[in-house]
Amino acid sequence: MNGRAFYIGRFQPFHLGHLNALKWILSREKEVIIGIGSAQQSFEPKNPFTAGERALMIWEALKQENLLERALIVMVPDTYSEHSKWICNIRTYAPTFDTAYTNDELSRLLLEEAGYQVSPIPFFDREKYSGTSIRLLMARGMQWRDLVPQATAKVIDAINGEQRVQRIYRLHGIV
Amino acid sequence: MNGRAFYIGRFQPFHLGHLNALKWILSREKEVIIGIGSAQQSFEPKNPFTAGERALMIWEALKQENLLERALIVMVPDTYSEHSKWICNIRTYAPTFDTAYTNDELSRLLLEEAGYQVSPIPFFDREKYSGTSIRLLMARGMQWRDLVPQATAKVIDAINGEQRVQRIYRLHGIV
Amino acid sequence: MNGRAFYIGRFQPFHLGHLNALKWILSREKEVIIGIGSAQQSFEPKNPFTAGERALMIWEALKQENLLERALIVMVPDTYSEHSKWICNIRTYAPTFDTAYTNDELSRLLLEEAGYQVSPIPFFDREKYSGTSIRLLMARGMQWRDLVPQATAKVIDAINGEQRVQRIYRLHGIV
Amino acid sequence: MNGRAFYIGRFQPFHLGHLNALKWILSREKEVIIGIGSAQQSFEPKNPFTAGERALMIWEALKQENLLERALIVMVPDTYSEHSKWICNIRTYAPTFDTAYTNDELSRLLLEEAGYQVSPIPFFDREKYSGTSIRLLMARGMQWRDLVPQATAKVIDAINGEQRVQRIYRLHGIV
Amino acid sequence: MNGRAFYIGRFQPFHLGHLNALKWILSREKEVIIGIGSAQQSFEPKNPFTAGERALMIWEALKQENLLERALIVMVPDTYSEHSKWICNIRTYAPTFDTAYTNDELSRLLLEEAGYQVSPIPFFDREKYSGTSIRLLMARGMQWRDLVPQATAKVIDAINGEQRVQRIYRLHGIV
Amino acid sequence: MNGRAFYIGRFQPFHLGHLNALKWILSREKEVIIGIGSAQQSFEPKNPFTAGERALMIWEALKQENLLERALIVMVPDTYSEHSKWICNIRTYAPTFDTAYTNDELSRLLLEEAGYQVSPIPFFDREKYSGTSIRLLMARGMQWRDLVPQATAKVIDAINGEQRVQRIYRLHGIV
Repeated sequence: MNGRAFYIGRFQPFHLGHLNALKWILSREKEVIIGIGSAQQSFEPKNPFTAGERALMIWEALKQENLLERALIVMVPDTYSEHSKWICNIRTYAPTFDTAYTNDELSRLLLEEAGYQVSPIPFFDREKYSGTSIRLLMARGMQWRDLVPQATAKVIDAINGEQRVQRIYRLHGIV
Repeated sequence: MNGRAFYIGRFQPFHLGHLNALKWILSREKEVIIGIGSAQQSFEPKNPFTAGERALMIWEALKQENLLERALIVMVPDTYSEHSKWICNIRTYAPTFDTAYTNDELSRLLLEEAGYQVSPIPFFDREKYSGTSIRLLMARGMQWRDLVPQATAKVIDAINGEQRVQRIYRLHGIV
Repeated sequence: MNGRAFYIGRFQPFHLGHLNALKWILSREKEVIIGIGSAQQSFEPKNPFTAGERALMIWEALKQENLLERALIVMVPDTYSEHSKWICNIRTYAPTFDTAYTNDELSRLLLEEAGYQVSPIPFFDREKYSGTSIRLLMARGMQWRDLVPQATAKVIDAINGEQRVQRIYRLHGIV
Repeated sequence: MNGRAFYIGRFQPFHLGHLNALKWILSREKEVIIGIGSAQQSFEPKNPFTAGERALMIWEALKQENLLERALIVMVPDTYSEHSKWICNIRTYAPTFDTAYTNDELSRLLLEEAGYQVSPIPFFDREKYSGTSIRLLMARGMQWRDLVPQATAKVIDAINGEQRVQRIYRLHGIV
Repeated sequence: MNGRAFYIGRFQPFHLGHLNALKWILSREKEVIIGIGSAQQSFEPKNPFTAGERALMIWEALKQENLLERALIVMVPDTYSEHSKWICNIRTYAPTFDTAYTNDELSRLLLEEAGYQVSPIPFFDREKYSGTSIRLLMARGMQWRDLVPQATAKVIDAINGEQRVQRIYRLHGIV
Repeated sequence: MNGRAFYIGRFQPFHLGHLNALKWILSREKEVIIGIGSAQQSFEPKNPFTAGERALMIWEALKQENLLERALIVMVPDTYSEHSKWICNIRTYAPTFDTAYTNDELSRLLLEEAGYQVSPIPFFDREKYSGTSIRLLMARGMQWRDLVPQATAKVIDAINGEQRVQRIYRLHGIV
């Protein structure tokens, strides 16, 4: 057991791949800070859900999994193309941590340049458990509920999220 | 038992007055969203701690109090004097809620103008349990630990927070 | 006759389709707030004219049409991909209104999510009266003057607007 | 008769001093662009009303005075202490003009440095017709209606503005 | 010999084409302000290097060429699609100048609209001495060192810049 | 001789105290990065001069002193009360350095928290050589030219700077 980890993602939405990654990290680390990235974005094809909605999805899932005592959710706004400023957002919105976990190559590059130790995360059936594929299934009105924790599905239903994704994809000419 | 509450504050630091307010809210509501206000500010006399540090204080206190299943922490950046935009930060960074709890008159005004139901919170020995007084005690090197949850004191010690407050107050000519 | 309407558009430039839409709205509503969207953008292919120039086009057209007493022009800056914040820009830069009129699907989605009543506008020869087509005609040095109110043409000529559109389109490799 | 004038102010609220200034400018100039300054600010002691509310006050007053054909309302956001950038906000949100009218010394300095011709405006009973005094009268529940156009009073009443000013002044410890 | 020139570019990286342009400008002008554009961007395919790194490249090259007494380096942040505000960034971050030198068509358009005299720069083997080509050679691990001043190569090596470009290009799916 | 130093200040204006500090730093270090702080501010009592004007003052002074080969000027915008983000501005706008030199307590605190080695600078007749005193002398029309390098005086005269300071101080009710 190591110390405190940082796990950054956009969680659009929070799916079973994320949950598996979280469990894998917690098999190696004492506790984890979950950073909701691109926090200020929403109602976009890549970011349909607000940071508040994503936090609710994750919180409910952590509750179901009995992991609330080992995972703290924080929100990290994007700095868009001003990438050298992103590290300061992490230092503002997250407490200090020992190791960062991410498979995103830009996050890894920026964290490494800032002196952080960065570790990759094993993928869990990457094709299936991917935010992009799940949003596309939503947009097409196909089955996506078995790819996310029940908590995520419940939150998405409460905010009428499937219809939101469909409208956003349609107006951008996707699907 | 009502539904979901929103409790907004700056939590500089999270003290026993905040914890009592939280318990009082949870005696009336099913769950509460704790909004860390002025989230992007730190290293200032009124806001010495970062949003990440404040989230850690609250999370550790919720853990001690066994309240993690009923309270979700989110972060709400300030809009400074562009007050009519603050409500949209709440709608971005918090999930929807039924009632807002605050004793801050500006927050109440803005929430009411936006159509929210707002309720005040009873004060718990207001003079004593006040962020301003506690920061002043820190700045003067006096006793403040009994005014905050043990979790808060532990986090402040880990980041050398008392010394930080002392340096910030001194450089602003306070104390 | 209903109450106060809100009509949002980019008006790049203000053309006869916009003017027809405005008259149609005013056949149903007592008065209308015209919101100039993407107000902070200019000198771009999609947004060649500044908010000030667009306001002048609309004001002169309203004068010609004797509609100044029933239409107030306001300016609404974009929030880019931070869409959940756009509604607060509307609440800041426009007075309150009863119904929003727009054919833009994203505007409709955001306004509906915020609880506004939204109504579509009948199109008036959509292919012909479209900002995109008119800018393209300008860029190609072809006839566009009969597609806009005389007021718009006068403003565009005064700022040497046709040449501006040509230069912007050329430098982006369009046309 | 000269050409196009620019008249910048915060109009918190739009009062009879402003209206007299406007008429005086229009006795010398063909038309005037009215710039609502500090456009993004509201719910503050110095700026209680939003830009949209201020635009509505001015529009209704221009209607009463039959001046809509000679005055165009635009909105100019503040650049706070980044003063060298303010001129570009004017160039974005206002059409070009020949002479600027203002009694504000900072506006005059910035406009002059940018090469504009700037003219002062005669004061009309300055003590009485002042935004600061009128807001103070509102905050104290005293008579202010005779100091503003009827249109302003009607807009303020419609938005419950007197009570808003009272709450804002009280929470800032003013009055 | 004229007066003070302004030479704007992104300098990603500063190459021999830039150095030749600089010498050509200095054959006509007494001194030159070198404006590092898109100053806040970095770690992007088009802007891999920070403003600080680019300033260091140029400073070292000016030292080698004995031009420090005739060239002052300044930094000009982008205004993205808010182009009408870019001129104010130049007025903030650069001292006044007589003539602007640029081959970028958008810069030329914006400078001309603001009343500046703008002059093009002769290209020096444009295909070869181009930032885009040089970054591509870096990304492919091919020879680029003979296309930049020794100073540039030294700075890029010190920050491990070739590897940075390779990682950024790879994560964006370029090369 | 050590390595590369970073010397941060606002330089409003660049005076003989700054020049002495610079020489003292260069007696210990091989080269120095001069960071112009609060770079985006101007036309304010504390920050009357733009970043471009300050850069020109320093560059001309370095020329006079034959120090151009050992000092590189960069510009560091403020992050206002978002202090935890200031370090990322330094990392964006300055190249890497070994030691930071400053007498500003907040800069020292922020640099130390980020892991930098920070050294104080001996004061050179602090009462006399202070930006605040020199601006006050300017505002009062008293002697200030012997407190700054000739280069600074020349730049201030060229931009009519003494009159600017007088107007800014007067409009803020100072002096």
